[in-house]
Amino acid sequence: MSRSIRLAVIPGDGIGQEVVAQGLKVLSAVLPQDVKLETREYDLGARRWHATGETLPEAELESLKDHDAILLGAIGDPSVPSGVLERGLLLKLRFAFDHYVNLRPSKLFPNTPTPLAGRPEIDFVVVREGTEGPYTGNGGSLRTGTPAEVATEVSVNTAYGVERVVRDAYERANARPRKKLTLVHKNNVLVYAGHLWKNIFDRVGQEYPDVTTDYLHVDAATIFFVTQPERFDVIVTDNLFGDIVTDLAAAVTGGIGLAASGNINPTGAFPSMFEPVHGSAPDIAGTGKADPTATVLSVALLLRHLKYEAEAARVETAVTEDLAARDGVTRTTDEIGDALAIRVTA
Amino acid sequence: MSRSIRLAVIPGDGIGQEVVAQGLKVLSAVLPQDVKLETREYDLGARRWHATGETLPEAELESLKDHDAILLGAIGDPSVPSGVLERGLLLKLRFAFDHYVNLRPSKLFPNTPTPLAGRPEIDFVVVREGTEGPYTGNGGSLRTGTPAEVATEVSVNTAYGVERVVRDAYERANARPRKKLTLVHKNNVLVYAGHLWKNIFDRVGQEYPDVTTDYLHVDAATIFFVTQPERFDVIVTDNLFGDIVTDLAAAVTGGIGLAASGNINPTGAFPSMFEPVHGSAPDIAGTGKADPTATVLSVALLLRHLKYEAEAARVETAVTEDLAARDGVTRTTDEIGDALAIRVTA
Ligand SMILES: CC(C)[C@H](C(=O)O)[C@@H](O)C(=O)O
Ligand SMILES: CC(C)[C@H](C(=O)O)[C@@H](O)C(=O)O
Repeated sequence: MSRSIRLAVIPGDGIGQEVVAQGLKVLSAVLPQDVKLETREYDLGARRWHATGETLPEAELESLKDHDAILLGAIGDPSVPSGVLERGLLLKLRFAFDHYVNLRPSKLFPNTPTPLAGRPEIDFVVVREGTEGPYTGNGGSLRTGTPAEVATEVSVNTAYGVERVVRDAYERANARPRKKLTLVHKNNVLVYAGHLWKNIFDRVGQEYPDVTTDYLHVDAATIFFVTQPERFDVIVTDNLFGDIVTDLAAAVTGGIGLAASGNINPTGAFPSMFEPVHGSAPDIAGTGKADPTATVLSVALLLRHLKYEAEAARVETAVTEDLAARDGVTRTTDEIGDALAIRVTA
Repeated sequence: MSRSIRLAVIPGDGIGQEVVAQGLKVLSAVLPQDVKLETREYDLGARRWHATGETLPEAELESLKDHDAILLGAIGDPSVPSGVLERGLLLKLRFAFDHYVNLRPSKLFPNTPTPLAGRPEIDFVVVREGTEGPYTGNGGSLRTGTPAEVATEVSVNTAYGVERVVRDAYERANARPRKKLTLVHKNNVLVYAGHLWKNIFDRVGQEYPDVTTDYLHVDAATIFFVTQPERFDVIVTDNLFGDIVTDLAAAVTGGIGLAASGNINPTGAFPSMFEPVHGSAPDIAGTGKADPTATVLSVALLLRHLKYEAEAARVETAVTEDLAARDGVTRTTDEIGDALAIRVTA
């Protein structure tokens, strides 16, 4: 029986194109010969918006559905008003495809600079809720632009939405050696959403007696990210807190040049989407300076999601070895991609 | 003419009592002899709530108004459900007294451990909005406790509220040597609140041509807190983002044992309130292990607010010298307070 992967590719803006090319290079290299990789590229992002005013037309959203997964580079450009592409394209995809598990592993690789003294051991994964919270676009503005303006943003949280992501996080914690799950929220101030999260976290926890649980307010959590990151194993948190702490997590583990993410729909009803956490970095676009490692690690998450576990592990090992072998000589985006592609086939 | 300070004191919970005692010790020591210090202590916090069910009765709120300032230790205890004292006492005070400037300086003192490698120069101040945003208590829960629960939290932002705090931040930036102001928000996702903040930030900025401005999304800002904290001078941000980044700021500048804060009403219509950023730390309450330095630095902010500038500077110098003179020997809460009280009179 021949196997195939139908992959939608959205290179997007800035360095997106360059890093995605390396991700695809490594993906092709690591896949067994009998697996047919079919890619289809989508022209979405700043260029498209300037040309046509479109962010994500309905027809393209439909056509994207017809894939096993999506690989995305980066979205965003200073020439586009803030929010247009984020809300109209990136978040639209996460919401339309019900990517309720936004998975962001954080690991301090060997030979990788960290701003933290003493190089603590860091190896945790953040399960960020991806379809609710303050990201629903549920807000408005009254008397806009006048001295009497009132602007609101509504964080929407449902038992349905919280329970499914909390359950996913318990499953992941239960499958890891340390079996520890930390809920991060702010339930002493955001009492309604906070209590919903905490109650579900406690209730679902009864089904996972082997998992040790912990709760931290988001402000206190940021302290532990820099003073005691080794205390974390799996973290589950809301959409906005997850956005904030995963950038911080990336910073302490060597920078967003290495941070991968998966926007996952665990039911398989819609394709999941894999993207580096870094943005489009327009200042270095086209210079060959972009590090494609985060994209390559996102490809590993993609492979694991599609049940190519051995191939996912090979990609991760290749990255670990490549980082360990670094000697301080600066390499181009392409050179790093080549090195990784060679390693996965070795 | 004889001068006086009428100070309301809320020791609160856990280590609050101990650290406030040291703050008062240093305050008495540093004040000129002709200044009469009248203190009145308020029994508010977990003990009171357990005894009477009250958090902040109307009569006490009224009586607090009749003071020049408030010194608060810490609020919160695990025996009280999360949110009860925070919302019913601490936030109630901030809102009732319209403390719209929540001022939190961050400085890396000499001889102070930081988790960051390379000891960067850190000296910035966060102006956190204190009366709006997601802290208004404007939320609710429907079908609570059922699988169909929906919980919301509404962030409320007004031009009135944003402009006054942004203006205060520009004033502070303009008065500092580097004259740099960074707005931290998330206007690519929270577009309504974000655009309100950004528009006002840009418009008010035209009145301060000497101030250099910058904008960062809150997630990106957390990266710079650990990789490039020296880039910050004054930061202005909303209530929740300010809560998160000031704990992180405290962590990189030696821990919340040193972080001071002022909840300021710049109009003088109500008394301003000064408190250490750390919480009640019930695990070390009564052991003499609590570091009163954050409270003493909060007393410096209090003195400056009441226009005792020379005395404020003396307290800050005393802290700097005391930290520089530390030799690794552990001192009790009381010993640190004594040492600081001696230094301010020297
Ligand atoms: C670009 C932006 C909308 C996005 C987010 O806030 O989720 C990004 O910061 C991320 O973390 O993927
Ligand atoms: C205790 C809590 C309500 C408070 C806040 O969130 O403002 C605290 O974290 C702070 O920063 O002063």
